[in-house]
Amino acid sequence: MATGPDGQDDTQSIDLKLAKAAAEELRNEPMAGWLTVPVDRAEIAKIKEAAAAINENSEYLVCIGIGGSYLGHKAIIDALMPKSQTKILYAGNSLSSYSLQKVLEEIEGKDFSINVISKSGTTLEPSLAFNILKQKLKERYKYEDRVSSRIYATTDARFGALHEEAVDNHYHTFVVPDNIGGRYSVLTAVGLLPLAVAGVNIEAILDGARKEKIEIHENLAKSSNAPAELAPLTYATLRQKYHGMYHDVEVLATFEPELQTFEEWWKQLFGESEGKGGKGIFPASVVYTTDLHSLGQYLQQGRRNIMETFLKIESLYTRTSNLSTQEKAELSQLRDYNAVAYQATVAAHRSGGIPVFEISIPDISAESLGRLIYFYELACAVSAKLQGANPFDQPGVEAYKQNMKNMLQ
Amino acid sequence: MATGPDGQDDTQSIDLKLAKAAAEELRNEPMAGWLTVPVDRAEIAKIKEAAAAINENSEYLVCIGIGGSYLGHKAIIDALMPKSQTKILYAGNSLSSYSLQKVLEEIEGKDFSINVISKSGTTLEPSLAFNILKQKLKERYKYEDRVSSRIYATTDARFGALHEEAVDNHYHTFVVPDNIGGRYSVLTAVGLLPLAVAGVNIEAILDGARKEKIEIHENLAKSSNAPAELAPLTYATLRQKYHGMYHDVEVLATFEPELQTFEEWWKQLFGESEGKGGKGIFPASVVYTTDLHSLGQYLQQGRRNIMETFLKIESLYTRTSNLSTQEKAELSQLRDYNAVAYQATVAAHRSGGIPVFEISIPDISAESLGRLIYFYELACAVSAKLQGANPFDQPGVEAYKQNMKNMLQ
Repeated sequence: MATGPDGQDDTQSIDLKLAKAAAEELRNEPMAGWLTVPVDRAEIAKIKEAAAAINENSEYLVCIGIGGSYLGHKAIIDALMPKSQTKILYAGNSLSSYSLQKVLEEIEGKDFSINVISKSGTTLEPSLAFNILKQKLKERYKYEDRVSSRIYATTDARFGALHEEAVDNHYHTFVVPDNIGGRYSVLTAVGLLPLAVAGVNIEAILDGARKEKIEIHENLAKSSNAPAELAPLTYATLRQKYHGMYHDVEVLATFEPELQTFEEWWKQLFGESEGKGGKGIFPASVVYTTDLHSLGQYLQQGRRNIMETFLKIESLYTRTSNLSTQEKAELSQLRDYNAVAYQATVAAHRSGGIPVFEISIPDISAESLGRLIYFYELACAVSAKLQGANPFDQPGVEAYKQNMKNMLQ
Repeated sequence: MATGPDGQDDTQSIDLKLAKAAAEELRNEPMAGWLTVPVDRAEIAKIKEAAAAINENSEYLVCIGIGGSYLGHKAIIDALMPKSQTKILYAGNSLSSYSLQKVLEEIEGKDFSINVISKSGTTLEPSLAFNILKQKLKERYKYEDRVSSRIYATTDARFGALHEEAVDNHYHTFVVPDNIGGRYSVLTAVGLLPLAVAGVNIEAILDGARKEKIEIHENLAKSSNAPAELAPLTYATLRQKYHGMYHDVEVLATFEPELQTFEEWWKQLFGESEGKGGKGIFPASVVYTTDLHSLGQYLQQGRRNIMETFLKIESLYTRTSNLSTQEKAELSQLRDYNAVAYQATVAAHRSGGIPVFEISIPDISAESLGRLIYFYELACAVSAKLQGANPFDQPGVEAYKQNMKNMLQ
């Protein structure tokens, strides 16, 4: 699973004691609510009911949120490409007027609903976009109650500007749990409502995450020291080891373009959890084979300041389509070539002196992605702790938010 | 324009002697053909004629190429979003069966042409895609001559598999010059044909590049030592200086999502030119303000192994659209906020101990992008030379291409 700069398997000699202690500590952390995958049946039923209503009356759902409020669900939707009668659009994740204009033009004259996702309701980008899109809803649907019934607010259960507005105006509300921060929130209503609307099987995702959780916690409970049984801890331990050897950039590599947004989710998770106190591994990403004809040169022969993690997909299903038999055969051959390229690249980068991790999932499915999300959340929290960082704060981002408010006042 | 880790302006004390010598050397390099922006009037006329024919008879132009054969023109098209009756699609830039399937489904039953772009014609990804799409052309257009007349091959003038096939089958041909490598080729037929088809004013792009060229060479000729008059050399010199101070990741930052592909072009240019011999600055990119809520935390407070270059756009035009006056006012306000965010971020990262460059262009226009491309090509070649690297080879990529061929045989 992991090889060091010398190309040798490093999982055999690994000591997981510190990582196990860190994982143990997490159980008592106030912000580690995600550790138990806490969504209950009642909430799932409520989410599915809302999704059904949106599918019934909306051609578009505009999801308004930034950072952890959109990356997780967008990652899963881009990976699975589910079919749904409601198309998901994104707004409020930048200050780009062009991006917002594109959304406004696309929904012009169409039926749409809004899912505004913000713990506080005061983050600049989503609150600006929400104001504009609310106005758009009011123009399209004259009666107050029809407007309110098309707004779904995912926010704090008790406090904050968005919570108050939602209560005052009778929006539908969903809760961002107090004990889960934005970048760890995809398996709460934050991610699950847009996913359900997009046609993703949210129970399968939760099942996957729970299977991963149960496995790792059973193995911890029986005091396992087997690296393969404690994969997230093994990954966390070794990446900190390589970091100590001056490999201070980690490149996440996929051979499937559909996983590009997943890489963006991963970059936020690790960048925000570890990049503090003058420390951290810089998270970067590539999509192969495209980037073999670009950053590939650097990876193969450039400065050895990097480590690389390959996302390995054991089997890719062919999506149904109306292509001819011959075309299907050609695409199938392409998949075989892609698998060969995977092997060739891992081998070449190993022999090029880069520490290499391989993280396998059986396929690109809801269950597998649920597993992978839980794997990374746990690995990230443990890795940050091994580095001596608080995995759950983001003081630099808060500073930017405050700066912006001051400059605009 | 540039501040060091201490936040002080470093352009005042800079010595440009070595960079000037490197720029001088380039004039005699066999692979620095791009230095003169060599496209002549006859070739421009031929490109425009071909583009007009494609616009006339094709709803789609499928551009087949990987790395430098597609990134440059895609970067410009994504930035300018020109309107054209022909839509540009991309194929052969990965081995992803899903990506190719999407292209096949989109062109099903539509009129299309192909621009296959490959110096040798033997690179795996584009040659596989070309075979499949050629088959598709043959199914749609029964007569041999109609098929051939829809294939535009941009390739070597005299040698190689694609050149031979093109001659034998009477494809339209355009030339990849012998003295210009893939990642420096966007201002040749490689980029100009797709750009012209997409509706980009290719003369304006070339004008921009030539203005940049003339300015810098005039300033070199008059033995200027002013950092502002030799901006590409200043940038090259200082990034190598910061690299020597253990800042070995460069983050290119834009506040305009339309420039994201441009960042990918930049990553190939610098990654392939410098990432060799165990050296190089790792090129990474961010799109703000989106990534302020992700990698922003790392940039603000993480390990100080980074330098950051901000692409500053002096004025953003509003694209015409049928939005209401109120919506236009809201979008205009968003642009103002984005400008404030730019200032806040540059200031925050400067005070956070990151060396910061600002590179300004007046607007996102064909001429400005032409200038920027020339700026970066020259800066990159000089920077690689200062590092002691050959800016024009890519031995690691060639090794991958050879490995793949061996494994597949």
